[in-house]
Amino acid sequence: MARINANYRKLSAGYLFSEIGRRVALFRQENPGVKVHHLGIGNTTEPLTPAVIAGLRDGVDRLATIDSYRGYGDEQGEEELRAGLVRFYRRRGITLHLDELFISDGAKPDAGNIQSIFSSDSVVAFQDPAYPVYVDSNVIAGRSGSYNNNRGDYAGFVYMVCNEENGFIPDPPQDKVDLIYLCSPNNPTGAVATHKQLKKFVEYARKCKAVIIFDASYSEFIADPQLPRSIYEVESAEECAIEINSFSKFAGFTGVRLGWSVVPKALTAEEGEPGELHRFWLRRQTTFFNGASNIAQCGGIAVLSDQGLKESAELIGYYMENARVIRDGLLVTGLNIYSGVNAPYLWLKTPGGLTSWDFFDKLLHEANVVGTPGSGFGPSGEGYFRLSAFGHRENIEEAVSSVKKNLRL
Amino acid sequence: MARINANYRKLSAGYLFSEIGRRVALFRQENPGVKVHHLGIGNTTEPLTPAVIAGLRDGVDRLATIDSYRGYGDEQGEEELRAGLVRFYRRRGITLHLDELFISDGAKPDAGNIQSIFSSDSVVAFQDPAYPVYVDSNVIAGRSGSYNNNRGDYAGFVYMVCNEENGFIPDPPQDKVDLIYLCSPNNPTGAVATHKQLKKFVEYARKCKAVIIFDASYSEFIADPQLPRSIYEVESAEECAIEINSFSKFAGFTGVRLGWSVVPKALTAEEGEPGELHRFWLRRQTTFFNGASNIAQCGGIAVLSDQGLKESAELIGYYMENARVIRDGLLVTGLNIYSGVNAPYLWLKTPGGLTSWDFFDKLLHEANVVGTPGSGFGPSGEGYFRLSAFGHRENIEEAVSSVKKNLRL
Repeated sequence: MARINANYRKLSAGYLFSEIGRRVALFRQENPGVKVHHLGIGNTTEPLTPAVIAGLRDGVDRLATIDSYRGYGDEQGEEELRAGLVRFYRRRGITLHLDELFISDGAKPDAGNIQSIFSSDSVVAFQDPAYPVYVDSNVIAGRSGSYNNNRGDYAGFVYMVCNEENGFIPDPPQDKVDLIYLCSPNNPTGAVATHKQLKKFVEYARKCKAVIIFDASYSEFIADPQLPRSIYEVESAEECAIEINSFSKFAGFTGVRLGWSVVPKALTAEEGEPGELHRFWLRRQTTFFNGASNIAQCGGIAVLSDQGLKESAELIGYYMENARVIRDGLLVTGLNIYSGVNAPYLWLKTPGGLTSWDFFDKLLHEANVVGTPGSGFGPSGEGYFRLSAFGHRENIEEAVSSVKKNLRL
Repeated sequence: MARINANYRKLSAGYLFSEIGRRVALFRQENPGVKVHHLGIGNTTEPLTPAVIAGLRDGVDRLATIDSYRGYGDEQGEEELRAGLVRFYRRRGITLHLDELFISDGAKPDAGNIQSIFSSDSVVAFQDPAYPVYVDSNVIAGRSGSYNNNRGDYAGFVYMVCNEENGFIPDPPQDKVDLIYLCSPNNPTGAVATHKQLKKFVEYARKCKAVIIFDASYSEFIADPQLPRSIYEVESAEECAIEINSFSKFAGFTGVRLGWSVVPKALTAEEGEPGELHRFWLRRQTTFFNGASNIAQCGGIAVLSDQGLKESAELIGYYMENARVIRDGLLVTGLNIYSGVNAPYLWLKTPGGLTSWDFFDKLLHEANVVGTPGSGFGPSGEGYFRLSAFGHRENIEEAVSSVKKNLRL
């Protein structure tokens, strides 16, 4: 008799964005004709840049003639794309080898799947709040106890609280853990770890032989040149850290699906077996995955060209100008905003001690603006709220005007 | 201290195709200038058809302008694509609902990931020989004991032997199992289950409340109109079967990455919970996956148009003519060939009682033709060999000539 993976039943009800969708739909139904402004999901809205479009067209054209046609590509991704990434890292002073890079269909699958190469009884630490995929994938893999509805956390997980006091970047855990998920710039808080803060984690991981899973998906949004864009900017991180990154946001590629992971050969889990994690991640990817779309990979190669990088920087500039518009507009209302300078997300404190969902409803009903409740990202997100800078400028400006005019603070 | 998922260490050494690559490289080194003919991997070689190229170009063009740009798509895949698949099934008399279809980046990921929604102590049955992903994904998930090097099998798995006596389609297992993987047309044997044979499995599964995972990736290669192309042609299969399929082979899409799974809402695992498997597969896909490339999905929509289907049928006709050339050519040599009429693979018995790998070496050294040892697909594949019909016609013809002329039988 087929039985279900009962870990799925442990997952706290529904995905955050389904509940948002439900409340927005209800609002629309009750308020026909009212324009709703979306500052919610982190989805790109602007067209891809000319260099990238040309790369994607080339990817399609190659499939149209017998001489240029290719079926399955290299198992770790096209060599030209990986070589482009090696150069991309080298410009930051980081040396990676071609076969330490694994091209994927995005950071979300990598962030979800990477846990599967580790023991199922691993003790896992997460930033709190964090991108829900880290926690959910580990619940499904059976590493948690049950969900506590009152506290909003899972038994058995280690939550590294991010709050005003620590500038939303936590210290390493007090106790020994096996795996640590770090995301910088963090989604949802937009907080970026300094070199010194990352170094503490690398030292912790090397001491405890823990592995850091570093999600750098938003690294290209970092404006401050002093802030690290890769964990490998910290000395010896290649011995204890995996890095995940994506073309989704920095090239506006969200639906095209392209990302990469770095699993260094120097990375060690148990004693005496360097290279095993690298080999098992290769085995994982070649067993459960068959490469990112060859068309998307041609687009990725174009992103990493000089012209592609220049255009992507302009695209990022557009979204970061949105962030500035939101930030400047809302600061004058007296709202507490903690980010939006080095990340496309703005993290704010709900006014008057409102819960995240109460502020969601207030913002929707008074200003007709949709954001994302911080509590959806973990228990320490309660009382906070995320706004996203992805959107057309005029919509962003309208949303900000509406908040300034209509939100009763 | 981070520890590895030790199940990876149970996996039998190396991937089949790595060992083939190693032997071919060695042969080339020792025999410079000798042309090697590839009838090995199931990779497409012919360019995509005009309708599909137009669809993919449209997919790229949509990303180039502000009005047509979209980021992430619908979580189960573009509705237009799923609607196309609903029509595709309806033409075979099968009624599916839009939300029972899950668009993916190919059959391999679905075949590997589907096990994760089931209990980790499930007893699993496989056709032997079979596509290695079914077995490997279940080893990694911890459902097997250790690998027996002499027998070539894993403790704890149920192997359903496919041999000459049963026409390479087995009966359901004698004992109760929880999950059954079936692939028809089978890779590697090319054998296709009849309606009566599938019915036996459906009856078994309904009786034991087992779930069948039916891989129909090669269904479009079935020429005989009497043979079922979908498990859902069997009455009540929607209560006990998941189906996986792909655009890879039938539209020549191998590197573009597009496939789909069907998880019916009527599918039941444990008693009293219909719909739960459907819901958990959705949760799995929305947690670990972020949709197939939107460009590939535009290509898939084009494949399912009237013109796209017509052109795909011609492309399949090309590969099946290759299969005929191989089959007819090799039959006159006296080799025993069991398939190649309803599948792009030809399964043959090694002559003179040779092992699969010995025949691999013989074929490579005498005729300079690369095929795939049957033993790489499971213990019952020993003494058999797979040839693939994917290739340019002239190469296929050269390979066949070389076998006829040079293979010493």
